[in-house]
Amino acid sequence: MAEKRTDLAVEVRESFPEDHVEIKGVELDKTERPDLRATITRVKIRDERGSIAMRKPKGTYITVESELFTHEEENREQLLLCICEQLEKMVGPMKEKSVLIVGLGNREVTSDSLGPRMTDDLFVTRHLRKELGEEFMLENEFGCVSAIAPGVMAQTGMEISEILDGVIQRTKPDFVIVVDSLAARSVERLCTTIQITDTGIAPGSGVGNRRKELTKETLGVPVVAIGVPTVVDAETIIGDYLEHVLSGQGYSEQEIESFLQEVMGKDTENVMVTPKNIDASIRLLSKDLADVLNHCFQKKG
Amino acid sequence: MAEKRTDLAVEVRESFPEDHVEIKGVELDKTERPDLRATITRVKIRDERGSIAMRKPKGTYITVESELFTHEEENREQLLLCICEQLEKMVGPMKEKSVLIVGLGNREVTSDSLGPRMTDDLFVTRHLRKELGEEFMLENEFGCVSAIAPGVMAQTGMEISEILDGVIQRTKPDFVIVVDSLAARSVERLCTTIQITDTGIAPGSGVGNRRKELTKETLGVPVVAIGVPTVVDAETIIGDYLEHVLSGQGYSEQEIESFLQEVMGKDTENVMVTPKNIDASIRLLSKDLADVLNHCFQKKG
Amino acid sequence: MAEKRTDLAVEVRESFPEDHVEIKGVELDKTERPDLRATITRVKIRDERGSIAMRKPKGTYITVESELFTHEEENREQLLLCICEQLEKMVGPMKEKSVLIVGLGNREVTSDSLGPRMTDDLFVTRHLRKELGEEFMLENEFGCVSAIAPGVMAQTGMEISEILDGVIQRTKPDFVIVVDSLAARSVERLCTTIQITDTGIAPGSGVGNRRKELTKETLGVPVVAIGVPTVVDAETIIGDYLEHVLSGQGYSEQEIESFLQEVMGKDTENVMVTPKNIDASIRLLSKDLADVLNHCFQKKG
Amino acid sequence: MAEKRTDLAVEVRESFPEDHVEIKGVELDKTERPDLRATITRVKIRDERGSIAMRKPKGTYITVESELFTHEEENREQLLLCICEQLEKMVGPMKEKSVLIVGLGNREVTSDSLGPRMTDDLFVTRHLRKELGEEFMLENEFGCVSAIAPGVMAQTGMEISEILDGVIQRTKPDFVIVVDSLAARSVERLCTTIQITDTGIAPGSGVGNRRKELTKETLGVPVVAIGVPTVVDAETIIGDYLEHVLSGQGYSEQEIESFLQEVMGKDTENVMVTPKNIDASIRLLSKDLADVLNHCFQKKG
Repeated sequence: MAEKRTDLAVEVRESFPEDHVEIKGVELDKTERPDLRATITRVKIRDERGSIAMRKPKGTYITVESELFTHEEENREQLLLCICEQLEKMVGPMKEKSVLIVGLGNREVTSDSLGPRMTDDLFVTRHLRKELGEEFMLENEFGCVSAIAPGVMAQTGMEISEILDGVIQRTKPDFVIVVDSLAARSVERLCTTIQITDTGIAPGSGVGNRRKELTKETLGVPVVAIGVPTVVDAETIIGDYLEHVLSGQGYSEQEIESFLQEVMGKDTENVMVTPKNIDASIRLLSKDLADVLNHCFQKKG
Repeated sequence: MAEKRTDLAVEVRESFPEDHVEIKGVELDKTERPDLRATITRVKIRDERGSIAMRKPKGTYITVESELFTHEEENREQLLLCICEQLEKMVGPMKEKSVLIVGLGNREVTSDSLGPRMTDDLFVTRHLRKELGEEFMLENEFGCVSAIAPGVMAQTGMEISEILDGVIQRTKPDFVIVVDSLAARSVERLCTTIQITDTGIAPGSGVGNRRKELTKETLGVPVVAIGVPTVVDAETIIGDYLEHVLSGQGYSEQEIESFLQEVMGKDTENVMVTPKNIDASIRLLSKDLADVLNHCFQKKG
Repeated sequence: MAEKRTDLAVEVRESFPEDHVEIKGVELDKTERPDLRATITRVKIRDERGSIAMRKPKGTYITVESELFTHEEENREQLLLCICEQLEKMVGPMKEKSVLIVGLGNREVTSDSLGPRMTDDLFVTRHLRKELGEEFMLENEFGCVSAIAPGVMAQTGMEISEILDGVIQRTKPDFVIVVDSLAARSVERLCTTIQITDTGIAPGSGVGNRRKELTKETLGVPVVAIGVPTVVDAETIIGDYLEHVLSGQGYSEQEIESFLQEVMGKDTENVMVTPKNIDASIRLLSKDLADVLNHCFQKKG
Repeated sequence: MAEKRTDLAVEVRESFPEDHVEIKGVELDKTERPDLRATITRVKIRDERGSIAMRKPKGTYITVESELFTHEEENREQLLLCICEQLEKMVGPMKEKSVLIVGLGNREVTSDSLGPRMTDDLFVTRHLRKELGEEFMLENEFGCVSAIAPGVMAQTGMEISEILDGVIQRTKPDFVIVVDSLAARSVERLCTTIQITDTGIAPGSGVGNRRKELTKETLGVPVVAIGVPTVVDAETIIGDYLEHVLSGQGYSEQEIESFLQEVMGKDTENVMVTPKNIDASIRLLSKDLADVLNHCFQKKG
């Protein structure tokens, strides 16, 4: 089929017809949290076989889906605590570690601005150690948090890794957390899903199709990626609908694909599908993710 | 068919199969301006018959289409002068008139923010008359320009006409120019087309589906509307592609529509199709339209 | 003396040497709220005599001063509830009334942007009555709130009253609440003080020196003004320091004033004194004031 | 005397009473450009003696002062070309060199946002070489420009040099250009003066008092700094006025200083003096500096 792009492991998993059947090398767990109107899905790609089937690196992918993310509601705080828990489950207690938090994306492009805007609300503490002393940090249970929003290649002329490599060498964080905007396949997941993974960032993912991978292999320290889908490729959504209708008409996959290739113009490459309330959702979610990370690294006892 | 929404008269006109055949009551003129890589189309709905066929009010609709709108290029200035000319053709010399320029839309929603942002760069002059005297205005060839960005109903709790009515009664402009973001049908027109019309704003048009009409009938003075398409409805684009493929398969219009109704989920209502560079395009276009209007009302000789 | 500008009644009151002595026609009450690190001052100008002495219109002026306003802290909510109480003391229960909330000032000028930014976070409800019905409003205890950020004369070419008059005639609110940025005399009050008054806005007040008064007399309905000082005039602060030093040297008021007139250049008119963290403070305070007003008009029971 | 802070060499030079007399080790040249309403001053600190007298590192400091900087006028372009010339005089032809342009400061603090906002309008080209090939770059006379806005320590928890060191090692630019907001001593220079120096950034300079120096010694490549004063310290301006008046009264320097120390409260530390139109000036100037740099690195023959 034509490109059906998604950065969400859960959507790749769903694309297999046999949703309930096991894919070799891939584990799947679903937990419902009705109190948060949330579904938590854990996809674990255990081995090479699973990695090939899923076309994603080995590792754990957790998604928390909830319609509450785009609403200012009272149990928002509980929802955010749930993200904290998932994060801690993946990387262990964070308060004692030093971390570099990276806000990926282009601040000037709304659908790609989640990462940079998140950094605006972070509580960074690394410089306080020098200023106020180790004791102050321990008393206040401050972790050691540094942060950067490196911009995208069109803004800097540099690969993100050309910026991060030296920063990591100089400041030696225990691990890196990367926050990024993602592409999804289904519109109902836009701005309502958070994916957490210990695999880092694969090349070609992100709203702006970041070039290089950001992983333990390339950066030298473990990389946790937190992503929120904010766009669906126009070709993906049109293709999905066409496929749905035509396969119902009895057309073969090959026939459908040739229809698609025939009709899909190059203009479609220059557009994207986003929620109508994308601006407000990005404002909410970037603040949320900063709150989640602030809580993880500064929480009491 | 399912809703195929467009605020562009030129797209309604194109939707008739017989593009070259005359529709009764509707005139169509096309002019190419190769120097500006621009096509200028003038659709004139002359009478009731044309109005019914086109489902648009009687009046003149001029569109200037050029890929240059989203590029910072040297002959940009010529392109903007061309818009000025079209505007003057429609309303006559503007420098001697008093005008209220209204920036419609929601500043906090990128795809709907063209109007409010345009007002940021306007050169308003109405208050200078009192401060600096009539003579100063004449010497400098300043027109009498006032401006307002009234916000949208979700921000104000009021209809736009509830805000504008009193302003017009108190300040008595000769006419009103309304600048708005529009919905188009085809993605290649997004942010590359400007529509100018003497019919004002029809209910249900604009990115946010403004409720009430803003016309000479409702506001009491002539209303010129300047609009730029910034979004395509997701349902429109999906429907267009499905129709294209299925009608090629020999399906009837009725069959196609029933497929569409069947597959189109309610999630599709909450998303829109925009250019990937929508943020940059809105920044450029809002400045452009302000420049065009500043030039119309303050130009020398 | 050279102009010692302040929009705060409490600062005018303090400028009288006999702080503890009564000024005829002016009442003064101070309440400390140590739990909120706040001082609440109520200045009531009872009659003409007091009005002349204070050079402010008759009415009640409440100021809540607390260093907590510029900090994100836990008892922030209590502080905001305290503002709600003061507001209700002045105007009675608000939930049953219809109100037009006006965000005065220039969104593009940070120190003057408090009012317009406050409107961004308001929960307006007036349009919901039509859409969802009276019963829905009562069940949810929604008041009837409309809002507008009319801009300043340099943006619109119009007096604010030329915009508001018609809006009030058409929408008939029970009263108007105006939120504005103010000038203070002492730097420690900047962004740490909220003034609430039932006198409306006097001409020449506000960061941008609004021209016309906005009062019951001019708008036809009661006007409550909520203001936060965000700037000190450079001349005021320099004059205060010079006066302080020179009067200690035994110079007479006249001598001091002549020194001031001599040294004060016209460049000083073009600058202002603001807090170094003005951007962050405005973001916090505009959200706070919206929260206060949302609470007043939508609160349960 | 109390701290009289300025980042402008021209103001340090002026602080010596003998303006026309030579200071050993310091050259002074003034050129008037009446066509641009501009004064160009070149202060050259030649040796250690001059460096001690001026309390600035050895090197050349050029300031271009013109009231046109805060006005949108026709000969703006000429003014910007004049900045280009001064820059080229200092560093030689730039088109053939590779450069890293650094926008220092805090994007979220208006008076400190000049550097980061400048980077928004830069035309970076370094990544195009890989994509489009060496020949394309030569044909278009594109230089090799990369850029970064690293943020300030309160945002990142890191020294700027901890971010830049690795970037410079990896990308090996021929030199670095740093753009920063400065503190001046006199209000009439705010947003009307550009200082260019080949000395880099000294510790404690900039609106936010950057900690570490950014110089050839610390970064390993030549560093040109371009700065625009956007604030005056409140203590500086008050001190200047008090000194002016009191020294006219015959008070000694020591007496004046003791008065100052007595009256200056700690609140004064938390405020700054900025132009009333600081927001608009920063928008204009950041675009201007980007235009200047774009012109230097992409100009034709």
